[in-house]
Amino acid sequence: MQNIVCFVSDFGLEDAWVGVCHAVIHRACPTARVVDLGHQIPPFDVRKGAAVAAAGVYQLPEAIHLIVVDPTVGGGRLDLCLVTGTGVRLVGPDNGVLMLAAERAGGVAEAIVIDPSKVDFRKPLGTFYARDVLAPAAAALACGVEPRYLGTLVPPETLVPVPFRPTEIDGDFVVADVLEYDRFGSVRLRVAAGQIEELGLARDYIELGFGHLVITVPFAETFSDVAEGEPVALIDSSGWLTLAVRQASAAERFGIEAGARVRIRPRS
Amino acid sequence: MQNIVCFVSDFGLEDAWVGVCHAVIHRACPTARVVDLGHQIPPFDVRKGAAVAAAGVYQLPEAIHLIVVDPTVGGGRLDLCLVTGTGVRLVGPDNGVLMLAAERAGGVAEAIVIDPSKVDFRKPLGTFYARDVLAPAAAALACGVEPRYLGTLVPPETLVPVPFRPTEIDGDFVVADVLEYDRFGSVRLRVAAGQIEELGLARDYIELGFGHLVITVPFAETFSDVAEGEPVALIDSSGWLTLAVRQASAAERFGIEAGARVRIRPRS
Amino acid sequence: MQNIVCFVSDFGLEDAWVGVCHAVIHRACPTARVVDLGHQIPPFDVRKGAAVAAAGVYQLPEAIHLIVVDPTVGGGRLDLCLVTGTGVRLVGPDNGVLMLAAERAGGVAEAIVIDPSKVDFRKPLGTFYARDVLAPAAAALACGVEPRYLGTLVPPETLVPVPFRPTEIDGDFVVADVLEYDRFGSVRLRVAAGQIEELGLARDYIELGFGHLVITVPFAETFSDVAEGEPVALIDSSGWLTLAVRQASAAERFGIEAGARVRIRPRS
Repeated sequence: MQNIVCFVSDFGLEDAWVGVCHAVIHRACPTARVVDLGHQIPPFDVRKGAAVAAAGVYQLPEAIHLIVVDPTVGGGRLDLCLVTGTGVRLVGPDNGVLMLAAERAGGVAEAIVIDPSKVDFRKPLGTFYARDVLAPAAAALACGVEPRYLGTLVPPETLVPVPFRPTEIDGDFVVADVLEYDRFGSVRLRVAAGQIEELGLARDYIELGFGHLVITVPFAETFSDVAEGEPVALIDSSGWLTLAVRQASAAERFGIEAGARVRIRPRS
Repeated sequence: MQNIVCFVSDFGLEDAWVGVCHAVIHRACPTARVVDLGHQIPPFDVRKGAAVAAAGVYQLPEAIHLIVVDPTVGGGRLDLCLVTGTGVRLVGPDNGVLMLAAERAGGVAEAIVIDPSKVDFRKPLGTFYARDVLAPAAAALACGVEPRYLGTLVPPETLVPVPFRPTEIDGDFVVADVLEYDRFGSVRLRVAAGQIEELGLARDYIELGFGHLVITVPFAETFSDVAEGEPVALIDSSGWLTLAVRQASAAERFGIEAGARVRIRPRS
Repeated sequence: MQNIVCFVSDFGLEDAWVGVCHAVIHRACPTARVVDLGHQIPPFDVRKGAAVAAAGVYQLPEAIHLIVVDPTVGGGRLDLCLVTGTGVRLVGPDNGVLMLAAERAGGVAEAIVIDPSKVDFRKPLGTFYARDVLAPAAAALACGVEPRYLGTLVPPETLVPVPFRPTEIDGDFVVADVLEYDRFGSVRLRVAAGQIEELGLARDYIELGFGHLVITVPFAETFSDVAEGEPVALIDSSGWLTLAVRQASAAERFGIEAGARVRIRPRS
């Protein structure tokens, strides 16, 4: 899986951008395999991009991750290659879109600002750095180039931070951001599988409060542990604490938006 | 085409699921080629999934077909590998989603319940059997593993049946379900190309009745056999009797829904 | 990149058509790589198909381009392989959908009407020439078959022309069609990068008139050369003069439709 490039963007599938990046990678590294994780991120939505990328990194840590949601392309923002504490390699713009994935994979161990002259033969076009810098950089990694060769090391603390608020303890409660909801309407919260124990949430039921709405739901293994139409909390395949409704949409049922704040506590 | 895995799901393209399954297959069988047949099946819509899968199987019988619309994932439904009478291999959940494709390819000759321990190293996650059981099973087939190796034979008559009503004769009429309509609005009926002769429908015109609506249309070879905006019946590329309107949507024009019942008879 | 087949269609991703064509190409030429440029072209929209294909050809001239928006399939329209003045190879129906791409790549040097018997073993189905003629023809090219082998030369002037009006000079103004707008709302005009100098538009500002609406915008290199929410003209990655709004939609802001006519002049 060393030569798999996982690709996330807000390019959509109506225009030629995604395909052009595929072709650029194929040309630069014919042995690379490009896997599309999701290109229907709403235009400029760095948070949704960060969430989809984090799901991909969690499930496919050995792959190279190319993540392009880039509202300020051409405006002097840096092109990054990050190596995380667990060795995952991420390529994308310095606007926070890589940072949730990095956080889940041991944090940023090395941050390299990509020098376009190292990865392509032409001057990058101001409107399409994905084609001219980021995709070629991912292709170079897929063909065995070392991250440090791509440019210059910068201190990780100088990067644009993760585009979500910290998960905090407030008395009895864990307070966290809603990361996103998916096409089935399952709502992912910024509480990672590995934090459940330490936060005291490993119980049969948990209470979730979204503004005035407070619900208590079973904390189970899968959707089918509750009856059709009933809500359930679980750890989903991307490793986040997730609120779902069996065979229906939790986001719709409870009117939950990405970016909302949720208060969580265990119940017995 | 032995190593092509055709992949149908209701995962959509907004999240990472489809890509994760691609990566899993690439890792398990690097010589496999994954071809996406359709991932925009509406969430949990087993019938639309069955229809798209049947179209793929009809056109690409040598490929391995991975079909995942799985509303009861984790709830004890079986993971299946089916081998049809004509030798087509299908992988997916036991909820009927494989059965229309199987029916069109000679019926179920062998049904194997997949044993997860045969196809992957880890315990399947309750919410994502596609990643942990079904995609690895399809990859195993693509790399030459025999279907029977994947698990245990079960009698085909114990499987969840096809999610459509039978096509019946009622006096002069053939009575059939609407399988689906496609993005161009062409409406596919559960009457296969091979049944047209025996059902006496091989005529210049046929009459179609949807509830109170009854229309008589030419039975032709292609859309262009009628004038723009005119309706036509034909056998489409997926091998079903189909009602179309040239350069417009038959589903919209006549208000036809998937799952409706249609009464058909020949007209001269 | 000689063996990359770039594929554009209006087939959507809800049904099996795109995947079936992928599989057909893989079978006919296992070394080919199929890259999807865009399949969400609105049904039958030859102009949008032509615009997306032209963007792909501009950026990936070495690839083979398979372009299928085909409202009159089966109705006697010709199947074409075009070789352009700069050597680009295009495959698709004779309805104009190839012609904008051809125009940008040196015009049509050779036009070959594909003979189905040269590319596939079966009689093409009236409803799916993409599967039975066009995809096999693209695969043949990817595996080294010479364009002329695919059929019969016809004079380029007999082809259905490009589906846009000519770009003209009217006094001070350049008058051009709106080709399309993309998912970010950037509006592409039928003025190519290479024409900017000769048309006298290489200035700091240009004026754009759409019916009663007249705006003067900076002519810059990238979106970020203006403030968020401000309009800007630039040459985008597909090589067309483009009206954009930074981090918003120009098409929405100014109510511009594809096919509209725009009057352009330089301003200082």
